[in-house]
Parts: sequence; structure tokens; C-alpha cells
Amino acid sequence: MSTKYALGIDFGTRSARVLIVETDGGREVVDIAMDYAHGVMDSSLPDGTPLEADWALQHPGDYVDVLRTAIRKALATGGISPTDIVGVGIDFTSCTMLPLDEAGMPLCLRAEYASTPHAYVKLWKHHAAQAEADEINRIAGLRGEDLLDSCGGRVSSEAMIPKVWQVLNEAPEVYRAAYKFIEAGDWIVMLLTGEERRSKCMAGFKSLWTPSGHSPDPAFFRELDPRLENVVAEKLGSLYHPIGARAGRITAEAAELTGLEPGTAVSVACIDAHASLLGAGISEPGQMVLIMGTSSCHILLDEERRHVPGICGMVSDGIVPGLVAYEAGQCCVGDHFEWFVENCVPASYQAEAARAGVDMHGLLSERCAQLRPGESGVIALDWWNGNRSVLADADLAGAFIGCTLQTKPEHLYLALVEATAFGTKLIVENYRQHGVAVREIRAAGGIASKNSMVMQVYADVLDAELAVCGTSQASALGAAMLGAAAAGAGAGGHDSLVDAVRAMSGACSKRYVPDKERVGVYQQLYEVYCVLHDYFGRAGEGKHLLRQLKAVKGRHLTAIGRSSSSRGE
Amino acid sequence: MSTKYALGIDFGTRSARVLIVETDGGREVVDIAMDYAHGVMDSSLPDGTPLEADWALQHPGDYVDVLRTAIRKALATGGISPTDIVGVGIDFTSCTMLPLDEAGMPLCLRAEYASTPHAYVKLWKHHAAQAEADEINRIAGLRGEDLLDSCGGRVSSEAMIPKVWQVLNEAPEVYRAAYKFIEAGDWIVMLLTGEERRSKCMAGFKSLWTPSGHSPDPAFFRELDPRLENVVAEKLGSLYHPIGARAGRITAEAAELTGLEPGTAVSVACIDAHASLLGAGISEPGQMVLIMGTSSCHILLDEERRHVPGICGMVSDGIVPGLVAYEAGQCCVGDHFEWFVENCVPASYQAEAARAGVDMHGLLSERCAQLRPGESGVIALDWWNGNRSVLADADLAGAFIGCTLQTKPEHLYLALVEATAFGTKLIVENYRQHGVAVREIRAAGGIASKNSMVMQVYADVLDAELAVCGTSQASALGAAMLGAAAAGAGAGGHDSLVDAVRAMSGACSKRYVPDKERVGVYQQLYEVYCVLHDYFGRAGEGKHLLRQLKAVKGRHLTAIGRSSSSRGE
Repeated sequence: MSTKYALGIDFGTRSARVLIVETDGGREVVDIAMDYAHGVMDSSLPDGTPLEADWALQHPGDYVDVLRTAIRKALATGGISPTDIVGVGIDFTSCTMLPLDEAGMPLCLRAEYASTPHAYVKLWKHHAAQAEADEINRIAGLRGEDLLDSCGGRVSSEAMIPKVWQVLNEAPEVYRAAYKFIEAGDWIVMLLTGEERRSKCMAGFKSLWTPSGHSPDPAFFRELDPRLENVVAEKLGSLYHPIGARAGRITAEAAELTGLEPGTAVSVACIDAHASLLGAGISEPGQMVLIMGTSSCHILLDEERRHVPGICGMVSDGIVPGLVAYEAGQCCVGDHFEWFVENCVPASYQAEAARAGVDMHGLLSERCAQLRPGESGVIALDWWNGNRSVLADADLAGAFIGCTLQTKPEHLYLALVEATAFGTKLIVENYRQHGVAVREIRAAGGIASKNSMVMQVYADVLDAELAVCGTSQASALGAAMLGAAAAGAGAGGHDSLVDAVRAMSGACSKRYVPDKERVGVYQQLYEVYCVLHDYFGRAGEGKHLLRQLKAVKGRHLTAIGRSSSSRGE
Repeated sequence: MSTKYALGIDFGTRSARVLIVETDGGREVVDIAMDYAHGVMDSSLPDGTPLEADWALQHPGDYVDVLRTAIRKALATGGISPTDIVGVGIDFTSCTMLPLDEAGMPLCLRAEYASTPHAYVKLWKHHAAQAEADEINRIAGLRGEDLLDSCGGRVSSEAMIPKVWQVLNEAPEVYRAAYKFIEAGDWIVMLLTGEERRSKCMAGFKSLWTPSGHSPDPAFFRELDPRLENVVAEKLGSLYHPIGARAGRITAEAAELTGLEPGTAVSVACIDAHASLLGAGISEPGQMVLIMGTSSCHILLDEERRHVPGICGMVSDGIVPGLVAYEAGQCCVGDHFEWFVENCVPASYQAEAARAGVDMHGLLSERCAQLRPGESGVIALDWWNGNRSVLADADLAGAFIGCTLQTKPEHLYLALVEATAFGTKLIVENYRQHGVAVREIRAAGGIASKNSMVMQVYADVLDAELAVCGTSQASALGAAMLGAAAAGAGAGGHDSLVDAVRAMSGACSKRYVPDKERVGVYQQLYEVYCVLHDYFGRAGEGKHLLRQLKAVKGRHLTAIGRSSSSRGE
């Protein structure tokens, strides 16, 4: 019998990748990445229509391009026959959502909506629904609704319901025209199989779904807005499917689009970060996967449902059947470092990097590795894109504290790295304080595999050994495992997701061991971080002043918005 | 009779300038600037001996080079005969001090002290005597000494006594070898005239001198340190001379050094900023000169002595006879902008500036001028070099608050500009709250004459019309007025300083008028600034955490110091 493969498609923030993996042993055979032509649209639509602050959209045509181009390229590169692909797994950022018409067509692809921002895909990091999220949390508080189960006590502006409600508030005509709102991952599954098979993982973590159905009930939604009373039944859906299950099979139309064989098994979609847990080889309680990329996630399994404030969600059977999956997150990690490199590095550093033949992250990381903890006197708050865990507040903004005339770019860069590590430590401590054991941390994602300076800082701040996943593509590998589980052992895949994880995961590639002396200094700096975190992040004077800054800023943005819409009249 | 001239020498932080001015009418005839070869030494001595953090030294040979080279160059450039120079006036940064041997030779110029940091000139912004300043303030507090009269209630680490005491603590052999410690400006007067004629302005503002003598008395100094009991009598001096008086005349030796005529009148030295008040044409109460350069000063005249906390000093007859001179200051203004341009501006901006043929300050200022107040959401604390008024704390450090992924370099640059303006507003409000009228503000200094974006921000933040001095060299013009007053009317100068000011000052060059709408927004942002100012700057949690950051940083610096001195053993 010929070697059998599973194909994982990992839809990330700026690019997607296709990974082809042997179902027996997990060898990664082909890895093809492809950027989205439109990237992240945060200032204007393709036709120039301006976007307000905090918006982040995508173009669904970019996802279709991945299906059309990258799968064929992966098959050709690996010299693999489509008939040897036994299953396809999908992971996707979430909640990345879009409105569809009755035919399953994204509204933004219809000519009449090409200039309508609300008709496009709202990317996970679209943060303009904060007002809606605030109101949901306020009313849930008044009604005594317990949102802890599904979303750690506070609905994030990144979640499904705030985004849907923002559409209703700002573009009721789009809301009316939308036959359904759907996670982009679930939409890809629809494209491939012709079936609407929504993911329990996505619905549980991002859309208030619980094993006993959507919660709160329609009365809650009515109180938010009478027009929302039946939003779940009318615009979302009530049937959700477990991770590792088969959603359907490649249709003839999808086979033509992708080059895959008709009838190939396709899995239910999984959130990209959550697929990493599988790709990291985790199937037991107490093991946390720390996925470090543009943002970071902290996902782990536990036997019990526990109330943990400030996490993003807790879903029974959310990833591995029989266990409770917990997720917390930092909405801005690598994005800090990118921002810094784009905006704050002088020409002399660029010249030096060019001479040394390294990229700017490499140069700054080398310099940071020479610094001792606390040497610069600068500390940062890692809220350049707000805070997800444990404050769940997109209106927060970041800070550098302790700047002097001796402060150098590498000091600021290191402060950003350290601040993201402090943020992670605060999340780990929060899990532990609320009874969820964190016994082992496996790191995955681009930063974990690429930047040893960052990883050593994390090991020292966390005072924990960090094992880096053997694969550099944990999400895509997890997606391939889903494809193998969807296919079943009879077809050359595996009969359960746990079997697939065990058969297809590899050893860790590197371990970072904490340095005792650095651990001690970082403990002191962490205490300073916590004081700043609470001053600027929790109710009181500091948080109030961040709100004031945002209010003054918002007034300008509203004014700009107004003048541009009046131009359009 | 041929035209008569006064010659002002303005010794600044990085360079000096010689200005030759007609005593009748004040026309500025020649203006020659000269950089100091050693600049500011803040990391090592000329021989490579490393300096610790917060140090800032200068080389006295650089001042002598100015006397030797720049005066001749000015005379030659103007085609002016030395016989037509009726008087020479000196202004100097302060407290910029050095130890002399009995012959009046700076200790650092003696070979045995060439590698001894404490033998060099301590520049005004040398901040390493903070521990001494803290102890002086602590003991003054315990004893109920009223330091408000001479230094606004707190002795700054920039003042004379903390600097002298630091020498005693860290290099007692230098302290013993020092026949005198002297202000560099007074030393220049000694070099030119052969006479030790110390300045009341410098002693009053920087060395605890009051009209009734040095205060506190020896018992206070004994309590600081028994070895300091007679520091004033032994190491400083007890005779001080008023501004506008003649210190002496150019000696034969000085004539050979400078190219000036022997016998030319030389004034008592004045602090550079205070000379600006004269150069700005001010001789009346309620007129404030705001001198904007690497640091800023806020100097004004009043009829009464009033207790104003947080100012740098209050000296009767300190500048203009019969009036009380008040000084407050910000120890880091233009230095912020320089730091930013050196450390934080990406190559793409440099390329754009090169294409546009402007310098980086010009490019950033153009972009800032397009921004509306508060549009960026970023606010800064202008403490990159500590805070002088009103907190008098060199251990404070700066901050950027409100950063997001949309934050651009011009947003940070503008936040620094605004923060320095808020700092100025706080100083003006503090004067007014304590009874000192501020009715009119005249701006002087490099920034005032060069950067209209900065000036408009200041006018809007202060909600006050700002008149920019007609001269771009107010200090040097003030020094020339001192030279004219030292010469007397009979010699072609003037009989009093007020006469010289009236005869030699010109009209303002430009007025900045506040914009009502911007004033309103800045009022809101100023309130946010004040909250941050008090949180991080006054006793409590925020100040404590800045202290902790500095303590952790200091531990490394001490360790580095130790390892380098052990290398030297």
C-alpha cells in the first residue's frame, strides 16, 4: 500500500499554509506558505473606502486563492497524488467572521457591497465592537448572567456577538441582507464540502455556545436589542460539531477548485491556536501550549470545569473529547516587535544589520541578549493592541516607563519582549490561583522556533523550563491530524483524534532552562509590572486616564469619519 | 568718535559663542559659535577611564580654546579693532563647577589627575550627586531649615553643595587637593582679570548664598558631614559680586591669550539663562523669559520675596538691582527631541528628510503640525533627564503612555513636545498659585527662534501669547550688556545695567497666538498630564516603582563599576 497523507490548511493572520504530513509517523513532507494579497485591511477597503480606527478586515477572495493555488503547489512540490491524501483538516483564526447570502456567497463579493466595510470579513483583531462588548457585559452583569463558563466572565470585543451587533448597529442593511454570519473557518468547510458544519471549538470559545446550547437565552439577547432576540437561530445556527469529526467530503466543484480528489474526507474546522495544542502533541491535563506569534494563546486541558476570571473561554470537549479546554490570550505579542522595527529603529541600526547580514529582529535580539534584566531601567505595558487576558479590554493602550537619555532602541525592544513575558506570567498565575494546574509548558509558533533571546526571557520570567515544539507549524500539523481523524483508520487515517495526535506528533526541538539569577531580578520587575498593570488596567485613576486619552482621540476619528461620509453624500 | 562695542561670551552646554554688539542701539555685528572639542563627557574621560551613570563632565581646556580662538575670529570677522571693545561680559551654564589648585589651575589639567573623574568640570547636568542632595534635604527637613528662600525648598543634585560633597565622599584626595571649588564662569573671569570675583547670581541660585550670607550656617554643614563644617569658608568663598558690576580688567596675560586690549573692562559672570532675561529686554516685574534649549528656564522678576515651592531659586538683586529674580527650570527639553531623533526615527524618515532637504527635526515638525491635539492618544512624561521644577528629583524617569500599533514616530515626537509644554504650564501655574504674577512671556533660545510647531504647541498649552525675542542669542546679548555696564558710560558703555538693557535690546521677532479650539483640548490633556505627574512624581505607589526600576538598574551599574575598577587593580 502506498504512503498515505493528511493535508492541513492553516489560515493565519497574514498568510495561510498548506502542510502535507504522513499519517503514519507524522513526517512533514511539504510546507507551502502563501500571503494574502489584501493582507489585513485596517485603513481602507480595496476601492479606497476609509476605515475607522480599530477596524481590521480581510478579503475572502484571498482564502479562495489559497485553496486554488497553494494546495496544487503543495501536491506538485511533494510529487504526491491527490488520491493519497486521505483527509483534509482546516484551522483558522477566530473569531474571524463574515456575512453570507443564501447561496453561501460572502456579501462583500457582490458588487453592490464592494464599498461597504461591514460586508467584509471581520478579522479576529477587529476591535471596533468594544462598545457592543461593554454593553453585553454590562447587561449580563445586571441580569446576573454567568458568562464565566463560556468566556471567562467578560465577552471580548473580538467575539462573535459583539461583531454581529456592530453590523446591526452601524449597517442594518447588511445585517438584514446577511442570510447567515459564519466563522471564516466554517465557511471554508462549506466551500469544500457543500455542508454547513459549524465547529464546537469556535462556537464554544467565541460565540457563547455551551454543551447545553447557546447561553444566555433569547431573553438576554432581547434585552441587548429587540432585533437581536433570535440572532442565534436566525443568523448563526444551532447545530455544532466536535473537533476531529468529519464535516463531509470534497465535492466535485471543490475538487475542481483545489485539485483534490472528490470524496476526500474534510474535518470540522478548529481555531488555529487550538489546533496547535494537538500539533504540540498534547492530549493530557496540566500541559499548556503557549503559542507565540503576532498574538499569543495559552491553551490547556483540565479534567474539571473551573471558574477562571479573565480567560477567553472554557469549552467541554472543546479540543480533546472528554477534557475541558481552557484558553487565555494576549492579543498583541509579535505585533509589538513588528511595530517597533517598522517605527522606531534608526538608520544606523539598519545599516549595521545590512552589514551583518541579519534582519532587524536578529540584530536587536543579539543586542538584547547582551543586556542583563533590569539594566535599562525601562519597563513596558504590552497593550499596544489592548489586553485580552486577564483584563479583556480593547480600549487599553501600551506604555514605556523609565525612559532616560541613555535609553537605546534595544532597551525599548527588550522592554516590549519582557512585558509580553510578564503578561504571560500573569495569565499562568491566574490559572493556578483558580485551580487549573499548569505543570508543563510547550511553546509553539513562529517566535518560539525562531528567537532564542525571547524564549530565554520567557523561561526566566516564568521560572519554568520551556520545551519548543519539534514542528515549526504546530497549527498546520494539528489541522493535518484533524484530517487524518476525519478520514478514519480504514482509509489510511486514524480512528480518533487522540490516536492521530499520538501517531503524528514528534519530539521537542529545544529546551530553555531558567537562569537562577535572572529569575530573581525578573521576579522584582514582575512586581513592578503588576502594579502598573493594575493601575492602568483596573478600575481607578490610571485606567480612567487611558479612557480619557482614547476619548479625546476618538473625537478626532469621529470627526474624520463624519467629514469623509459627508464627502460621499 | 568711533563706534563702540561690547563683547559677550556665552558658554553653553555643547558650544560657546562670541557676540559683538554696538553699545549704542544694540546692533549685533558678529556672532561666532565654537563647539567644545570634548563636548559633554558622559561615558568616559579622554583617556578612556569609564564614567558611571548620571555623570556629565567637561574639559576646561575647551573653554580656554574659546578664549584663544573665537574672540580673535570674531574681531577679525567684524573687522573690529580690540580698542573699540569697551567691555567683555561672560555668561556660563551653572552650576558647572571645578576644583582649582592654589595657582588657579584646574586640577584635571595636572598630569597626576588626568584619569581622575572628580578632578574634571562637573557640568550643570551631572546628576550623580542625587544621594548627597537627598541627604541635604533630609537633614534640612529634620532641622527645620528653610531652604525655600535660596532654592525653592529642595536642593537639586545640580547645585554646588551636593557636587562638592560628592567629591568629598568619593574622592577625598581630590577634595583635599582642591584649594577652591569654583563656578566655571567665575573661573573664566579669574583667567581674564586675575581676580576671584564670584557672581551673586550663581552663588544665590546655585550655592545657598543669601543677602545675609551663606545659609544654613556651619552647624548645618557639620551635621551633614563633620568634614564639611567650614566648606564655605575653606573651599568656596564669602565675597560675592552683583550682576552688572565690573570684576576687573583684562590682564596682559589674558590680552595675549585672547587678542583683547589689556585693561578692557570685564563683568562679573552671570548664569547663561539669567543673562537671557536681559537679552530679552526684560527689566520689569511680571515679565517672564522662557528660555528653550537642551533644557529650559523660567526666569522672572518680582518686587517681593515669596515662598514658591519647587522653583530653583529666588535671589534678591539676582539679576536686576532692586528686584527679586525667580528661576524655575526643566532639566530636559531639547534633549528629548535630540534623543528621539538619534534613537527612534526609522530609515524611511531619514530618506524622506534627505529628499526634502530638511533636517529630521524639520521633517517631524512638519508632520506634527498636521496633527490635531490628542489625535494620537499618546501622552508623555518629560522626565528623560529627571525633573527640576517643581519636583526637584533627578531619579525620576520619563514615560510614553497610550501607545498603539497605529502610533507613528511623529506621534511620539509630538508627545514629547507637548509634555515639555505641560511641564512649563505646571511651572507657570505654580508661580501664580504662590503669588508671583506672570503677565507676559517672552521666549528665547534655539527652539524658540527655530521651531514654529513647538512654539504654537506652547502657546496653545499655556493659553498665552508668546513673543519670541528679536535676537536669537539672548544670553550672549545679555552678556554683552553686562560688558557695556562694566565699562561705564564714560568709556562708551552704560552707567547701569538697566540703562544697558534699555539701550541695547530690540523688538520681538514673532508672536504666537493661542488657537481657541486647541487650547480646549490641551486643557483636558493637561489634566491627564497632572494625574500622571503626581502619580509618578510625588510620594506613593508610582514614584516608588520608578525608584525600584532605578534601584535594579543601579545594581547593574554598580556591578559594572566594580568589575572595571577590579580590572584596573
